[in-house]
Amino acid sequence: MIRETVSGGRRGRIDLPHQSVETPVFMPVGTAGTVKAVEQGVLESLDAQIILGNTYHLYLRPGADLIRELGGLHRFMNWDGPILTDSGGYQVFSLGAMRKLSEEGVHFQSHLDGSFHLLTPENVIQIQEALGSDIAMVLDECIPHDANRDYVRDSTERTIRWAERCLKARNRGDQLMFGIIQGGMHKDLREQCAREMNHMPFDGFAVGGLGVGEGEELLHAIAASTVGLLPKDRPRYLMGVGRPEDIVSAVGAGFDLFDCVLPTRNARNGTLFTSAGKVSIKRAEFANDPRPLDESCDCYCCRNFSRAYLRHLYMAGEILSSQLNSLHNLYFYHRLMERCREAIRQGRTAFWSRESTATFSQTV
Amino acid sequence: MIRETVSGGRRGRIDLPHQSVETPVFMPVGTAGTVKAVEQGVLESLDAQIILGNTYHLYLRPGADLIRELGGLHRFMNWDGPILTDSGGYQVFSLGAMRKLSEEGVHFQSHLDGSFHLLTPENVIQIQEALGSDIAMVLDECIPHDANRDYVRDSTERTIRWAERCLKARNRGDQLMFGIIQGGMHKDLREQCAREMNHMPFDGFAVGGLGVGEGEELLHAIAASTVGLLPKDRPRYLMGVGRPEDIVSAVGAGFDLFDCVLPTRNARNGTLFTSAGKVSIKRAEFANDPRPLDESCDCYCCRNFSRAYLRHLYMAGEILSSQLNSLHNLYFYHRLMERCREAIRQGRTAFWSRESTATFSQTV
Repeated sequence: MIRETVSGGRRGRIDLPHQSVETPVFMPVGTAGTVKAVEQGVLESLDAQIILGNTYHLYLRPGADLIRELGGLHRFMNWDGPILTDSGGYQVFSLGAMRKLSEEGVHFQSHLDGSFHLLTPENVIQIQEALGSDIAMVLDECIPHDANRDYVRDSTERTIRWAERCLKARNRGDQLMFGIIQGGMHKDLREQCAREMNHMPFDGFAVGGLGVGEGEELLHAIAASTVGLLPKDRPRYLMGVGRPEDIVSAVGAGFDLFDCVLPTRNARNGTLFTSAGKVSIKRAEFANDPRPLDESCDCYCCRNFSRAYLRHLYMAGEILSSQLNSLHNLYFYHRLMERCREAIRQGRTAFWSRESTATFSQTV
Repeated sequence: MIRETVSGGRRGRIDLPHQSVETPVFMPVGTAGTVKAVEQGVLESLDAQIILGNTYHLYLRPGADLIRELGGLHRFMNWDGPILTDSGGYQVFSLGAMRKLSEEGVHFQSHLDGSFHLLTPENVIQIQEALGSDIAMVLDECIPHDANRDYVRDSTERTIRWAERCLKARNRGDQLMFGIIQGGMHKDLREQCAREMNHMPFDGFAVGGLGVGEGEELLHAIAASTVGLLPKDRPRYLMGVGRPEDIVSAVGAGFDLFDCVLPTRNARNGTLFTSAGKVSIKRAEFANDPRPLDESCDCYCCRNFSRAYLRHLYMAGEILSSQLNSLHNLYFYHRLMERCREAIRQGRTAFWSRESTATFSQTV
């Protein structure tokens, strides 16, 4: 799977039931069976290699049984490329009401209609098998960054027991399963979690519980120390982290997969990623600016539309604003990953330090 | 311009500064410089020959001077095909507040910010020349269908005087100008209006003030009697009328151009046009229906997505719902016009009577 490594950064290939994926790779988030405002044909034209589906959302609506009955998530949404599904745990903690956590699993109320539900290690695997994703994730608890050490230890130990139950619940042979390393902001608990998980027959490993408000420095410290504890021969996925400079830094540390709502959510809010930094398309000075958003970008949006037009669409609340902005931001992310892969291929060791301190997130 | 006529229906070609248009033709409504939820490349793939821009909306936001400065509406929105702009009068009457009508023009307050504006025959032509559309429309008053005869007579006479002022205000040689026949629901006033307008050097004529609540029977009676009063050698445009069966009937009566928000607005509300009638995509029975929306439709949406998926997107409030539904409905309309042109070419006289009483608007 690994093709080259350069001072921590690695380029590789993951063979999945639906096509192979060249890593490092960014996965656009397709929450409810659609990457918001980006039609599947457009996604394909953007060279999106793999997308993420949210088990929590799909389980509540339209329902996993329904999707299985209709031939699985790929056929349901007409996307032939690979799909990774999360376990739903993260959304239960961030969206669900009245959560009650026990050894069995997590009880919660739907954010849609208040109905009661229980997610267990076993049924999140059943649900993901019904969805038929290429990669399933185990159920874990995403621990608040300011939880006390005792809570983190207990929760992490339960996440490990849940991981074992997930493996036992496995029925499909054509779906990879990734374990998730928790352990909060404590290096020793992360280490303990990784040590125990490494013995389990997972196809890959994710690092969870980061990018949840702990701050940039801690995020990178924990990410870098944890990735070093993971088997070198299997894919490593940094969950939900997110800003371009965070991703580049984490690629340099040895992560292979990434996902985040940032490019698409920012797009809908009129915040666009460019080679010069983040740009708010609302800015008055763009009103009569005939230039493309990013003159060094060759995405469909920048090749065809002006800053003035993009600003107008945003100000007028037009749907096309979300469509074009999302296309541009995803193109930016995919191009960034392409540059990461290229830097590794060419052995350019300076890439990480330079690009990870670049001004991607600076607002210009 | 006219190629064939069949018992009233006519096929022809209008040569415009940006390409020629095969008639009869439907013009999707691109209110504020975008056909809602349909990207320009998609519009092109749908064989949309010509689109409509709303002068009222573009004048208020982003402003006609700004669009001129940026190279005109075509360049602003990156649409190389023909554009017809209305005069803004209709929106002043339907959207603007505090309207005050005088011989000079119409004073109104913006629906966006309450600012005060005046549209006159002269400045609506200046605005449309700034936008640079292929076809400009004269300023008229769209008379309520239940106005009394005296009001209709006075208003129609003013519309005629306004039309003369519009012609005098003309500065561009590369833009067609269409007059608008008013006269309310009174055949003699329509006749009088047409007689006077016919003497003026307009490049085409529109029939306005229909489809405003007068009922189907009256709509078709007035449309059919008025179209017969118009010069045969120039394009005839039935403004804002709208349902598929209305359009087919009006094609049979001799109209060449149509526009309506119905296909795109219905799409966003989940109402879809199919060969079997109108369909609400919300229907519970579609939840697990793997079939395409319309099995006899070969649009991108019907070739790639199921009723179950379209229903899910709508129920989940996903932007892709508006994108796919709008694409399908516009495809339906363009295909309908293609069938009209084909029927005329083949001299099928029964087409009008059969299709105009078809079940397009029946809800199935």
